[in-house]
Amino acid sequence: MNTTLSSRQLLQSAWQTNRILKICAQQIFASVSLLKPVETSEGKKPILYSYWHSSCSWRVRTALNWKNIPYETRAVNLLKPEKGQFAAEYRAINPTAQVPTLLIDGNNIIESIAILHYLEETRPLPALLPQDAYERAKVREIVEIIASGIQPLQNRKVQKHVGRDKRMEWVQHWINSGFRALEEKLSTSAGKYCVGDEVSMADCCLLPQVFNARKSQVDMRPYPIISRIESELEVIPAFIAAHPTNQPDCPTELSDR
Amino acid sequence: MNTTLSSRQLLQSAWQTNRILKICAQQIFASVSLLKPVETSEGKKPILYSYWHSSCSWRVRTALNWKNIPYETRAVNLLKPEKGQFAAEYRAINPTAQVPTLLIDGNNIIESIAILHYLEETRPLPALLPQDAYERAKVREIVEIIASGIQPLQNRKVQKHVGRDKRMEWVQHWINSGFRALEEKLSTSAGKYCVGDEVSMADCCLLPQVFNARKSQVDMRPYPIISRIESELEVIPAFIAAHPTNQPDCPTELSDR
Repeated sequence: MNTTLSSRQLLQSAWQTNRILKICAQQIFASVSLLKPVETSEGKKPILYSYWHSSCSWRVRTALNWKNIPYETRAVNLLKPEKGQFAAEYRAINPTAQVPTLLIDGNNIIESIAILHYLEETRPLPALLPQDAYERAKVREIVEIIASGIQPLQNRKVQKHVGRDKRMEWVQHWINSGFRALEEKLSTSAGKYCVGDEVSMADCCLLPQVFNARKSQVDMRPYPIISRIESELEVIPAFIAAHPTNQPDCPTELSDR
Repeated sequence: MNTTLSSRQLLQSAWQTNRILKICAQQIFASVSLLKPVETSEGKKPILYSYWHSSCSWRVRTALNWKNIPYETRAVNLLKPEKGQFAAEYRAINPTAQVPTLLIDGNNIIESIAILHYLEETRPLPALLPQDAYERAKVREIVEIIASGIQPLQNRKVQKHVGRDKRMEWVQHWINSGFRALEEKLSTSAGKYCVGDEVSMADCCLLPQVFNARKSQVDMRPYPIISRIESELEVIPAFIAAHPTNQPDCPTELSDR
């Protein structure tokens, strides 16, 4: 019997492990959610226009989970833009043609960081910002290093514009450039998580960015603090349930991913 | 006598006009500032590490002026990076090696959007965010469209990485892409300014971005709402005093700019 596994078999094995983890996560998260159900002010569930693989959607999914806000997902397929993000119906609610958009309290809100702040201001507990103004500034510094300093330079539309030949070098360059600064910043702010020992908006942004880095084969060894926080976050039910592979629009076949 | 002016003479003429406007703005702003002096909690003036031409520094200068917070400028010369942004002393306070950094209340705060929020939370009046949560979300949507969606793709370091030959096409592409979405967003949010009739953080971000667009020869005719708001903002003393050409580190000779 040949015991050497092909890369395809390894991927399939990883995929099956992930499915088991997904079921565990859903069980854990369902039990947590049942403890503290929160409805919107109108009694309707918010609707999140999301793409399973989008790191900005992931930020918002994490915040909704963290705050125990039940929501429905409407998938926007970024791989079929004419039927998804560029469809007239979607552009009417989000002129940037990007995900996410959150329909909540009767309003469509776009831009993930604007959504995180809206959730914090209308549903403050469990909190994603500290009470003290300077501690809040520390959280927002990290949010901005990621959300304006790294993610915009490595997202799908920029990669497409850069072109297939150059995109891997481009993505690795900007993630490394941002991570060097982030690692240094975290050396003075981090406790268990990005800022001290409480989960914050900064963590909602960090985990998806590290996922993108690993997908783009960024060597994470120069970033021990980022990697340590990643390992703390990836076991928290609200983060697990928000993971791309745990979304309803995540393709079940590897070939479609 | 030859009455035709060369492009050099036209620039010099525009420059002289600007100097006169600068003196007027300083006079107006000085009188406004004298009416409502605000000291920091420690009685020391905040120090803004800034570069005259940086649009992110301009956002913060505008907010400081709007809130009548006297401050000192420490110039960080982005054209001489080894003595400026990449100097060990500066990297020690800002690991991203970018401007601005604000030393205030004994702490260094980096990232312009984090600084704007810190100022709003510690010195709420005159306000740069509305009271209502959804109106605040509208402001932050526009802030993010500019601060994460446009500016990061057209800043100095990205232009340098793209290279001299391609940078103009690159910058125009991303500014136009962002401005199309922004114009549509403003069609539902704008009054006199970006959101209704009150100046907000969104306006602090808009004017520097339009300045960059014009400098990069973006055709502004498809953006009548953005252009109208620009004309409203550019006559407000707090915005005039924050203008790049009104900064102490703005070179006096055109050849150095």
